[in-house]
Amino acid sequence: MKPLQVGLIGFGTVGRGTWDVLRRNEEEITRRAGRPIRITWVGTRRIERARQGARGITGVQFTDDPGHVVRHPDVDIVCELIGGIEPARSLVLDAISHGKHVVTANKALLAEHGNEIFAAAHAKGVMVAFEGAVAGGVPIIKALREGLTANRIEWIAGIINGTSNFILSTMRDTGASFETALKEAQARGYAEADPSLDVDGTDAAHKLTIMSAIAFGVPMQFDKAYAEGIAALTREDLRYAEQLGYRIKLLGITRRAPNGIELRVHPTLIPTRRLIANVEGAMNAVLVKADAVGATLYYGAGAGAEPTASAVIADLVDVTRMHTADPEHRVPHLAFQPDQLTDVPFLAIGDVETSYYLRMRVLDRPGVLADITRILADREISIDAMIQKEPTEGEDQTDIILLTHKSIEHRVVDAIGRIESLPTVRGAVVRIRLEDLA
Amino acid sequence: MKPLQVGLIGFGTVGRGTWDVLRRNEEEITRRAGRPIRITWVGTRRIERARQGARGITGVQFTDDPGHVVRHPDVDIVCELIGGIEPARSLVLDAISHGKHVVTANKALLAEHGNEIFAAAHAKGVMVAFEGAVAGGVPIIKALREGLTANRIEWIAGIINGTSNFILSTMRDTGASFETALKEAQARGYAEADPSLDVDGTDAAHKLTIMSAIAFGVPMQFDKAYAEGIAALTREDLRYAEQLGYRIKLLGITRRAPNGIELRVHPTLIPTRRLIANVEGAMNAVLVKADAVGATLYYGAGAGAEPTASAVIADLVDVTRMHTADPEHRVPHLAFQPDQLTDVPFLAIGDVETSYYLRMRVLDRPGVLADITRILADREISIDAMIQKEPTEGEDQTDIILLTHKSIEHRVVDAIGRIESLPTVRGAVVRIRLEDLA
Repeated sequence: MKPLQVGLIGFGTVGRGTWDVLRRNEEEITRRAGRPIRITWVGTRRIERARQGARGITGVQFTDDPGHVVRHPDVDIVCELIGGIEPARSLVLDAISHGKHVVTANKALLAEHGNEIFAAAHAKGVMVAFEGAVAGGVPIIKALREGLTANRIEWIAGIINGTSNFILSTMRDTGASFETALKEAQARGYAEADPSLDVDGTDAAHKLTIMSAIAFGVPMQFDKAYAEGIAALTREDLRYAEQLGYRIKLLGITRRAPNGIELRVHPTLIPTRRLIANVEGAMNAVLVKADAVGATLYYGAGAGAEPTASAVIADLVDVTRMHTADPEHRVPHLAFQPDQLTDVPFLAIGDVETSYYLRMRVLDRPGVLADITRILADREISIDAMIQKEPTEGEDQTDIILLTHKSIEHRVVDAIGRIESLPTVRGAVVRIRLEDLA
Repeated sequence: MKPLQVGLIGFGTVGRGTWDVLRRNEEEITRRAGRPIRITWVGTRRIERARQGARGITGVQFTDDPGHVVRHPDVDIVCELIGGIEPARSLVLDAISHGKHVVTANKALLAEHGNEIFAAAHAKGVMVAFEGAVAGGVPIIKALREGLTANRIEWIAGIINGTSNFILSTMRDTGASFETALKEAQARGYAEADPSLDVDGTDAAHKLTIMSAIAFGVPMQFDKAYAEGIAALTREDLRYAEQLGYRIKLLGITRRAPNGIELRVHPTLIPTRRLIANVEGAMNAVLVKADAVGATLYYGAGAGAEPTASAVIADLVDVTRMHTADPEHRVPHLAFQPDQLTDVPFLAIGDVETSYYLRMRVLDRPGVLADITRILADREISIDAMIQKEPTEGEDQTDIILLTHKSIEHRVVDAIGRIESLPTVRGAVVRIRLEDLA
């Protein structure tokens, strides 16, 4: 059968990885797909690097103008691996308008402009596939869109930023500070020179936005996502959490609550006995709770050249398979048919209900604990567990750590303000959210 | 759009679960699938039970003759949930010959007669979908057939029998014997009155056979599977394993070794720090090692009415979507195109290379250990770790526990025979295989 012709735009880490895996496993992939998948055009600024990688290979052409690739008649599928918003957005829209299917691993583009892109693709009858955009090589988009179609999905909780998870694992294992662990992540290539999008939760929020839309049948709404990073976490809090039977992870959580959809990324205490609490290093894992199947978990490498290439190529094979099906029978971009998306509101973080870890430094005086628990009780915040440390020899201060039952966030914020204004409380109260994930 | 018409044959636990989930989540499923999926016929011996479940619902007819359902013109897809070989096999073949697509959760049928069934389906241009046959609601078939198409799969290791995993978890947590833990599993409904297919490894071998075929592009060959159950495991071995940093799980392992494919189910020591070692109770998990993506893991409920229904309904939606694609472009039954299956040999268990846990009871005499290690060394079996217990007060015997490096099984069997014939060794040597899963 005639090979499917792919135009690759972007030849960075993932572009190169996709090239390599497609070549190395060509026979295996063709045996599965039923027809060869060939890269016929490469559009990249790194044209020399690309040419070098392609030495001895015929049938592929190179250009430094990706716009040429997305419009070329010898291209059936455009594989966008440039990343970022522009020029990726314009190129993808241009490819669609020329009737090309698109495969992309660009989470920022989809989270922020996915609605526009999917509408254009739907109008044109082409597919936009994006398995590589979330959790690298883990086929989580496929699981959510196709594997769990029977279910009403209740919530998703994911470790979807490998850099942050590596930093938190290192802090816990070695007792390193955030800064030291970040340097270690950079030395190992797990963190960029500018790590801000990873450690401030933005990258995870992009991925979570995509999963939320697919899980609940709502349009992408990245602007509704709440993101809080890991830079403020201390070794002390990781240690106290362990003593209480919890581990701290940067989680992306999206949940269908009675009054709206939660969409939030933040450090989270989770019970150590949960499988997902034991996901270490730069690995990713997504836990999905659904009404029929219960809890399922998907784990693997969330980044890197070949893991992401694995997802990109799976999409290429899927498009190869589905492009003869009539468009109404293909898997919908956001899992639900485009006219079946609903306009459920998203919850502001202040209206979210969850549990909390609170740590405060107090003077060792009678009545301190009574004042604090009174403030909490007045706001209907009940206490699940507590540690009060003995003051160290010769010191007049000590730490109190509280775990609360589920409470509305704005009440907890209010209580924290009152607690911090007590004369016996020193400095700010540390507040980390806690999820049981049962 | 016209509803897709399903004929359900078999109305036991999973049949009833499928009925319930399809009804409860009808709106959600239709929003995803793009057209309603309706059960129009139910064929079951439990006709009264089925009628009761369907009270108030119109458009469904009942018969105690499943043969009527598989031939009826108002049925597009036959959903086979009878289980076992006959009459399921004849009914499925009859459905195919009448041009019906088939969805089944029947692992025994596919492992033992899958080649015949898939050949018939291919000749007729219909699909046979079977996500529910392996690991219940976990979409592992989809991950292997579609999610990992870019990869050369190296090996799969799965906890794919929930009953056995529950028993082993209970033995470890409570110190119970196998017999006591089995009774507990039966009391909780995790084990049948006759638990032999679960605890002797047969059920896991059925599921492993299916995964092996899909992973490596070979026909189903259940007769080549080696299966060893958990009934002989003792609390002592579970405890010694923990002391050495390992946990014992009943694993199904299939691997592409240089000289053939391994296909084996047996109790296995795995390092406690591996994520899969922490899968407890009746849950399932499948770990897949592949060249591009590395290790990925899929976890969830491996049995039960609604988890299995989740997989069955996902298949119904997939068939709904794919039936307009031309047959050559659909996902092949065994992941590879039918003319691309290869005839790689399977390895006999004696030719498999793995590591071993050996426990032996010895007289506390000088030279015992020297005799044992000499026997091992003569067969090129090298030792990775050892525990020798102090003899208990007033006793003349003690336990020696050895972990070996990788060795060929028939050499180890030979060595064990020689060790057991030493005058200083009492009784049989316990031998449990060990996998690092790195």
